[in-house]
Amino acid sequence: MTVAAERTRLSDVAQRAGVSLATASKALNGTGRMTTETRQRVQHAASELGFRPNTHARALIAQRSFTVGLLTNDSYGRFSMPVMSGVSEALVSKGVSVFMCGVENDPELGRIHLDAMLDKQVDGIIATGKRGDRQLPAELAELPIPVVYAFSKGPDDAVTLMPDDAQGAREATEWLRRSGRRRLAHVTGPEGFAAAEVRAAAFREIAGPDAPVLFGDWSEAWGHEAAARLWDGGNGPDGIFCGNDQIARGIIDALRERGVDVPGAVGVIGFDNWGVVVRATRPPMTSVDMNLAELGRQAGRLILALSSGEDVAPGIRHLPCSLVVRESCGGAGPDRMTA
Amino acid sequence: MTVAAERTRLSDVAQRAGVSLATASKALNGTGRMTTETRQRVQHAASELGFRPNTHARALIAQRSFTVGLLTNDSYGRFSMPVMSGVSEALVSKGVSVFMCGVENDPELGRIHLDAMLDKQVDGIIATGKRGDRQLPAELAELPIPVVYAFSKGPDDAVTLMPDDAQGAREATEWLRRSGRRRLAHVTGPEGFAAAEVRAAAFREIAGPDAPVLFGDWSEAWGHEAAARLWDGGNGPDGIFCGNDQIARGIIDALRERGVDVPGAVGVIGFDNWGVVVRATRPPMTSVDMNLAELGRQAGRLILALSSGEDVAPGIRHLPCSLVVRESCGGAGPDRMTA
Repeated sequence: MTVAAERTRLSDVAQRAGVSLATASKALNGTGRMTTETRQRVQHAASELGFRPNTHARALIAQRSFTVGLLTNDSYGRFSMPVMSGVSEALVSKGVSVFMCGVENDPELGRIHLDAMLDKQVDGIIATGKRGDRQLPAELAELPIPVVYAFSKGPDDAVTLMPDDAQGAREATEWLRRSGRRRLAHVTGPEGFAAAEVRAAAFREIAGPDAPVLFGDWSEAWGHEAAARLWDGGNGPDGIFCGNDQIARGIIDALRERGVDVPGAVGVIGFDNWGVVVRATRPPMTSVDMNLAELGRQAGRLILALSSGEDVAPGIRHLPCSLVVRESCGGAGPDRMTA
Repeated sequence: MTVAAERTRLSDVAQRAGVSLATASKALNGTGRMTTETRQRVQHAASELGFRPNTHARALIAQRSFTVGLLTNDSYGRFSMPVMSGVSEALVSKGVSVFMCGVENDPELGRIHLDAMLDKQVDGIIATGKRGDRQLPAELAELPIPVVYAFSKGPDDAVTLMPDDAQGAREATEWLRRSGRRRLAHVTGPEGFAAAEVRAAAFREIAGPDAPVLFGDWSEAWGHEAAARLWDGGNGPDGIFCGNDQIARGIIDALRERGVDVPGAVGVIGFDNWGVVVRATRPPMTSVDMNLAELGRQAGRLILALSSGEDVAPGIRHLPCSLVVRESCGGAGPDRMTA
């Protein structure tokens, strides 16, 4: 794919000839209405730049097509849109485009769309999704082109990128400790969801084996219920690390309604750093960011390397998460307001 | 594109031969390791089904590629993911795949990705975005393939699909009236945003020219501020139609904190019917749904029609919105709980 950088595109021809993309295309296809002078100017620009107008004929020779396919089953886009934007950022400077295709959880859709991508001779495929412990419903093993798994489960011998859930959870829990919180609790999604279990185990490493861990679902409603369980019949914890932002928002709202001050009496940290949730929470929420755009950038670079025939060691690469500090748990301790 | 339905795909060959897609691909390309028997079985299946293994050679003959490109600048995916899923739903039964490509607000990205789509000989392009009164940063006029605009502004002579904001706003306001609300207000996003202005004008048609309309931004924080403005110094309205769900959520939270019962004393309706917001609001929110998946389905059908050479009248088609009734404004009047 190193060829991509030097490749002449139709738009280069259009620019050189000072015409629109549409005009350039028509001029070279011998269609459309334009002056002979314009058509000749475009043909001249094409020949100066070494542009081959018939891309299919060129692809037959070069066997390259300079496109990466992104398959996803995240129909909400929460996880896949940042991954796509990262992949695009890494590849666009090489003249490589990223096309995303939604396969939902339907093997028939997976088959049809994968078929279309192979048919278009994409140079590689990045599989992404909405959780790292599930495979996409698509037959990706042993394809004739490179495949990278990014926030989606791949076979053991695949190149896979995952956020480092354990490190992110440890940083959040340590941050609670460093801000003087001593009675810590963790409220998270369902057991059996790998991200929930890994984050819970990492929380216990720091908070101790007796610190309460409450499994539930990924909703605000569960945050309300968990707050009730933790506070009914006594003082609750003074620091809560949550498995996602929606649970944390539910807890923060529930505490406000109980008259428990966040962050004064309790520090709360979410996970995902989802803009629409963390910024609207009162106070704005400290949260762990999985850096999915960076994960996408690295997936893009790995696909480039694999396409160029470079050796890339198989296995799972864990990329670090970042703690984004806001008011719901600043650096200061209990009973002190934070910036 | 009617040809698409009858087309033989690599996966048909794989299925007929009882092998994986990867094996079928390698067998026909003469690569990979497999028994001679397997390779022959695949080649036999391909010849029985009339499959031409070299898709580029075939495309040279057929000039068709059975793919629609979806260009978007909605990097959050809130609007484009439902559009993509609708387009895909309409086209997949015809064997046509949809590839989405993010151009953000960058004309350079628009140029590169459009170029890649033309290079791949997509059969049509659907332009979509995050608001209907802005064009994508891509030169889409006079392309040699059909273009449909869906929730994005196109030129006057283009085929454009838009949600019927005015009808959606009228339905919401009439619903407030029918549930017995008499003092109505509208709280919405910025002036100069076409959707905000159209919805506000439609609200005034029903609620009367003196009903208060508050322009602000699209955030929960603005909902809180608007509630303060409406209630400070007197009784507020008994029915509020909001320009989006986040504003409505801010207002509902603010009213709870003031001890004003929703829906008992005030009915509140949002706009967008965004699952993550409407379901988490207490009580769950009545909201206007723009039916973006249906908009995507119709865009897919129009692209098919245009590709087949059918006449499609240019202009803007407005598709109806639906009111989705939940507890924040049920059918019952003030002071009566609703289901």
